[in-house]
Amino acid sequence: MSELETALHNIVIANRILAHQGVVDAYGHVSIRHPLNPERFLLSRSRSPELVEERDIMEFTLDGKVVGDDRRPPYLERFIHGGLYEARPDVNAVVHSHAEETLPFGISDVPLKPVIHVASSMGPQIPVWDIAEKFGDNTNLLVVNQDQGRDLAKRLGEGRVALMRGHGFAAAGGTIQDVVRLSVYLPVNARVLTTAMQLGGRFKPLAPGEVESRGHFNPKAPESWGAWEYWARRAGVSHLLGEMP
Amino acid sequence: MSELETALHNIVIANRILAHQGVVDAYGHVSIRHPLNPERFLLSRSRSPELVEERDIMEFTLDGKVVGDDRRPPYLERFIHGGLYEARPDVNAVVHSHAEETLPFGISDVPLKPVIHVASSMGPQIPVWDIAEKFGDNTNLLVVNQDQGRDLAKRLGEGRVALMRGHGFAAAGGTIQDVVRLSVYLPVNARVLTTAMQLGGRFKPLAPGEVESRGHFNPKAPESWGAWEYWARRAGVSHLLGEMP
Amino acid sequence: MSELETALHNIVIANRILAHQGVVDAYGHVSIRHPLNPERFLLSRSRSPELVEERDIMEFTLDGKVVGDDRRPPYLERFIHGGLYEARPDVNAVVHSHAEETLPFGISDVPLKPVIHVASSMGPQIPVWDIAEKFGDNTNLLVVNQDQGRDLAKRLGEGRVALMRGHGFAAAGGTIQDVVRLSVYLPVNARVLTTAMQLGGRFKPLAPGEVESRGHFNPKAPESWGAWEYWARRAGVSHLLGEMP
Amino acid sequence: MSELETALHNIVIANRILAHQGVVDAYGHVSIRHPLNPERFLLSRSRSPELVEERDIMEFTLDGKVVGDDRRPPYLERFIHGGLYEARPDVNAVVHSHAEETLPFGISDVPLKPVIHVASSMGPQIPVWDIAEKFGDNTNLLVVNQDQGRDLAKRLGEGRVALMRGHGFAAAGGTIQDVVRLSVYLPVNARVLTTAMQLGGRFKPLAPGEVESRGHFNPKAPESWGAWEYWARRAGVSHLLGEMP
Repeated sequence: MSELETALHNIVIANRILAHQGVVDAYGHVSIRHPLNPERFLLSRSRSPELVEERDIMEFTLDGKVVGDDRRPPYLERFIHGGLYEARPDVNAVVHSHAEETLPFGISDVPLKPVIHVASSMGPQIPVWDIAEKFGDNTNLLVVNQDQGRDLAKRLGEGRVALMRGHGFAAAGGTIQDVVRLSVYLPVNARVLTTAMQLGGRFKPLAPGEVESRGHFNPKAPESWGAWEYWARRAGVSHLLGEMP
Repeated sequence: MSELETALHNIVIANRILAHQGVVDAYGHVSIRHPLNPERFLLSRSRSPELVEERDIMEFTLDGKVVGDDRRPPYLERFIHGGLYEARPDVNAVVHSHAEETLPFGISDVPLKPVIHVASSMGPQIPVWDIAEKFGDNTNLLVVNQDQGRDLAKRLGEGRVALMRGHGFAAAGGTIQDVVRLSVYLPVNARVLTTAMQLGGRFKPLAPGEVESRGHFNPKAPESWGAWEYWARRAGVSHLLGEMP
Repeated sequence: MSELETALHNIVIANRILAHQGVVDAYGHVSIRHPLNPERFLLSRSRSPELVEERDIMEFTLDGKVVGDDRRPPYLERFIHGGLYEARPDVNAVVHSHAEETLPFGISDVPLKPVIHVASSMGPQIPVWDIAEKFGDNTNLLVVNQDQGRDLAKRLGEGRVALMRGHGFAAAGGTIQDVVRLSVYLPVNARVLTTAMQLGGRFKPLAPGEVESRGHFNPKAPESWGAWEYWARRAGVSHLLGEMP
Repeated sequence: MSELETALHNIVIANRILAHQGVVDAYGHVSIRHPLNPERFLLSRSRSPELVEERDIMEFTLDGKVVGDDRRPPYLERFIHGGLYEARPDVNAVVHSHAEETLPFGISDVPLKPVIHVASSMGPQIPVWDIAEKFGDNTNLLVVNQDQGRDLAKRLGEGRVALMRGHGFAAAGGTIQDVVRLSVYLPVNARVLTTAMQLGGRFKPLAPGEVESRGHFNPKAPESWGAWEYWARRAGVSHLLGEMP
């Protein structure tokens, strides 16, 4: 399979995994930076993630313009993706989700911190981006132009995830497997933290070294590939997986 | 397809979507104002929403009387629908649900406010209608006559949703797609708000401009149609969708 | 269908409904008083409710003795059923469940009160039976003899449900449809009450007249039959339903 | 069936049950002490539990070395199993899980106590093992060598379960049926306790005699076999069950 074919398959797999795991619902999207041209990214036409197929995928420039003569309606919020790819050359895949469990932390002044090892790649604390800070109180909270995408990317900084107040989160990864895994466990981490706080005692988040120590994510390691395979099978797209590395 | 056929299909789709999404269970109902006669509305015979088919749909006058010689038992609470259509010429579709996540706010003095953008159409704060205020402490909480339906409509006012104490909610929309979307995200908003309050810090609801700014809902916009299509597919009724607009 | 055949079908339907709705899991059971002999009751052999079939049903005397030459292992806790039938001639069906949502109220001094109309038949407040009060601190909490069943029945009194501390609940009804409906909505009521209390404000339980006013449950009323039919269909046992009344 | 065949079948059944019940997800594992050689244990190759088949099972020495010429990648954390078998001759089966509901108690100073009878075998209070106490703040929290496995076993002591801070739990049993049942009900117990604490009143955990009194678990007793059979059927592996005892 060519690099481009693999990328197209992986976008479909990622959409289906996140839909099946409940991380995205009618809304939400996943993109990959174009493997042959870093100034472009690949993203489905406007479509619910569970329904995305290979033929739905469109190509965009980093400022969100459709490449070529493709007249299908794109996602309004493709600027989330473009903004992040533009600011972060190390990022090759982006997820945008409204995952319910993360939303309370997006509207609260209580910070979302990592408390479980499967979410250690989220970093020591997730920043919250409030669209109203720069764009005022009269938006519909959607990221609908490059300015807004860039402002979100600025809040993300060198991190992996930013919460978007009243809206969801944007997550970035070096690989699609990495950002999908993070997107699966971020809501779990949010629920565990929420419950730990409700217990009323003291609780211990991950130590800085435990957050740091996870190091580079290798999607080809047996335990990483195994999770990716498992999620893909459950989502009914194992035929797109290709050879086990 | 004629306007009436479309309305009948859409009632079935809406019932199945709301059942599949867990917004209604054994109980709950959805109606559409008759597209050819605004003094009438269409509603299933007394039947659990997941089982509703086209042939189950009956026609009612706004005061809840069965039109024609249809002797099948209607819902006891058809007056919720009649009351709202009578008071609100702008309303063309109504949902009644016992959605669990909204019930705590119906019995509490803590108000249900919008905190996420997908629920911004619910308005700045949801009023609670307590049947006991006017009809006393000896009802079974059901809306079983036009007086009660009218009193509920009065509490709704110019809004989109009213909570019914100890019972559920009634939601109104300009289109069936609009009110179904609101009914899907109202429980999500309730859960997010509940959790944000449990975190114990301060939280930020949507700003007035963010609630207002959503403007007129267009069910034919790609992102709105996409969600409707997605929910219908999951509920197994995509064959009733008709042409994509 | 004979009265006995109907009873056997209904036990199967009830077991499957409660399993499908998550009210029972590997454990839990449902019985019916023998329709031809009020001194006997019908209950499955020891088997997880989702697996119960007509041929699994055994006959017992009210003190829990197997009738006839049936050597299949019965449930250890059949005395819950016998105790209730013995004490309450008006009771014709009994459910025992470990439904998770009710368990916190069984170990807490916070009372489980009705807050939603679909659970109004539970009565104004659910008593808690603590096996340790009479039988000490060294039981395994199971109701394994007639003495324990009688003590539980005494705590139930003239009510519909008793919580069993650290264990579950026992519910009683005039008909199997009535007690199944109550068993489905008791956990919902528990969750709603739990959340309302977590909101931190004041909340309003059902008024005494609202609890009282529900009156006699008629399983043949369209809305009651409709719910029974709906739950049976979802559980895959609609072929056992018989004629709609 | 030989003892070894039964063990291999039971490992598959256990993996599938725990996956189906949501106790394990992409990660987690189950082992059995080799029935013919107590110095060895059987465990799947690195694979998500829902996908484990008989041919995936590998053999290990108690210090986690692969037996024979099997070059398939093993779980990184096989030392959890080896550590427990080495320290506890009475233990014949081990489960490692990230079950979400137990995680808050692993990071909190609020202890996880038994409050429901189906979890009474967990013991009076679950100890928490914090890898950082002995191995510092720079691990990735995984148990990746025998030293760490032994330290975990020490914290378990004579108990049945230890929580692992920020990670999950390790549970041990005399039989695979016993440890699976405990692993199923431990998360339920955690949720019930969490909710009881949120109610804000006083609550009553199981008394010492109620924890003690459960005695030896007999997987062949009708009620125990029934639960095992039920879970296996739901998980689609009833064909591996063998004869009912």
